[in-house]
Amino acid sequence: MNFCPKCGSIVERAIPEGDNRLRDICTSPSCGKIHYQNPRVITGCIVECEDKILFCRRAIQPRHGLWTLPAGFLENAETISEGAARETMEEANADVEVIDLFSVFTLAHINQVYMLFRATLKSPHFEPGVESLEVQLLDESQIPWDQLAFAAITETMRLYFADRKAGGFRTHIGEMRPIGEPGYRQYETLMLTE
Amino acid sequence: MNFCPKCGSIVERAIPEGDNRLRDICTSPSCGKIHYQNPRVITGCIVECEDKILFCRRAIQPRHGLWTLPAGFLENAETISEGAARETMEEANADVEVIDLFSVFTLAHINQVYMLFRATLKSPHFEPGVESLEVQLLDESQIPWDQLAFAAITETMRLYFADRKAGGFRTHIGEMRPIGEPGYRQYETLMLTE
Repeated sequence: MNFCPKCGSIVERAIPEGDNRLRDICTSPSCGKIHYQNPRVITGCIVECEDKILFCRRAIQPRHGLWTLPAGFLENAETISEGAARETMEEANADVEVIDLFSVFTLAHINQVYMLFRATLKSPHFEPGVESLEVQLLDESQIPWDQLAFAAITETMRLYFADRKAGGFRTHIGEMRPIGEPGYRQYETLMLTE
Repeated sequence: MNFCPKCGSIVERAIPEGDNRLRDICTSPSCGKIHYQNPRVITGCIVECEDKILFCRRAIQPRHGLWTLPAGFLENAETISEGAARETMEEANADVEVIDLFSVFTLAHINQVYMLFRATLKSPHFEPGVESLEVQLLDESQIPWDQLAFAAITETMRLYFADRKAGGFRTHIGEMRPIGEPGYRQYETLMLTE
C-alpha cells in the first residue's frame, strides 16, 4: 500500500502506539488512519456423489490445467458454507447441500485459510463454469494425484479417504509450511490433532 | 475506499468484467487495479483449567466492561491456532496449548468469521493484558451470561457446556444473523449440523 484509501495521502509503514506490528498508516495529520491487512478465507466443497468426488480442471491461473475442488475466496456478506456452495455453482454449475466442515488449513506464508466442506449434489447436473475446463466425478483410483493444483486440496483428499475407510468423518485442523527450494511447491503438513 | 492504495487515483465502484460483484476499481488507465475486500477471521481460546474457563473483562471498546474469551483478529503470517494463542497471551498473559477447533461462527452482516479453540494453560499464571480490566477463571455457575460481550462467545459457551455434559467435544459450525430492531443486538443462531 502506497496511498491512503480513505484520503489519498502517502502512507508509511510503522508500528502504531500500543501495537506490536508494522501497519500502513496515513501520514496526513487530519486522517492518520491505520490500514490493517488480514488473511483471507478460501472456502469450497468436497462434493460427494456415491463413491465419487466432483473435481474441476482449472481454466485460469494459477495452476491452469490442473485439477482442484471447487473453492474460492469468501466474499463479504456471506457465510463460509454459503461461499462454499456459491463457488461450487460458479465453477461447476452444481447445486449442492453443504453437510459439515471437513478441513481447515492455514497457509500462513501466503495469508490464506482454506475451509473445505463435505457436500452432496441436490441434482445430478453439473458442467464447467467459466473458470473450469472440465468437471468430472472421480473415484479415489481416478484422481490425478500428481495433477492436483493445490497442496491443501491434496492433503484434504488424503484425509477424506482415510476417514471414509475408517468409517467416520471429523473436522481436521492443520497448517502447511513451504520447505525446500522456493518454487518447488513442497510443503510440510502439521495437524493440530491426528 | 476513495483512492487507489497502489497509485493514489480515484476509485469507482463497479462490477469488473467476468465478475458479479461491485468492487473498488482504480480509474487510472495505467493502473486499473481491482481492490477486493473480504471477511476477517477472529481467532481465540476457550482456556480450560479443571472445570473453569478463562474470561477477560474488556478494557477497550466495543463492549468496554463486558466479559469475553480472549480472541482477536487473525494476523497475516500466522496460523489460526497461533493467533488464538497469541491473543490469549496479549489479553490475559496466559501461555496456552491449543487443543482443537471448537466453534466457527460466521457473522456475515459484519464480515467476520469467529474461530474458537479449546486450550489448556501451560502454567497457572495469568493476569490482565492492556486490553483487559480483569481476568478470571470462572466455572459455569459463575459466568455472567448477561454481561458477555459478543453473541458468538455466548453461543460458543452454551455449546461447550452442553458438549461437556454429553461427554465429548466436536467442532460446531454456525452463523448468527441479526433480528429485530437495529441496535438491540439480538441474533438468530443457525447451526450447520446439530
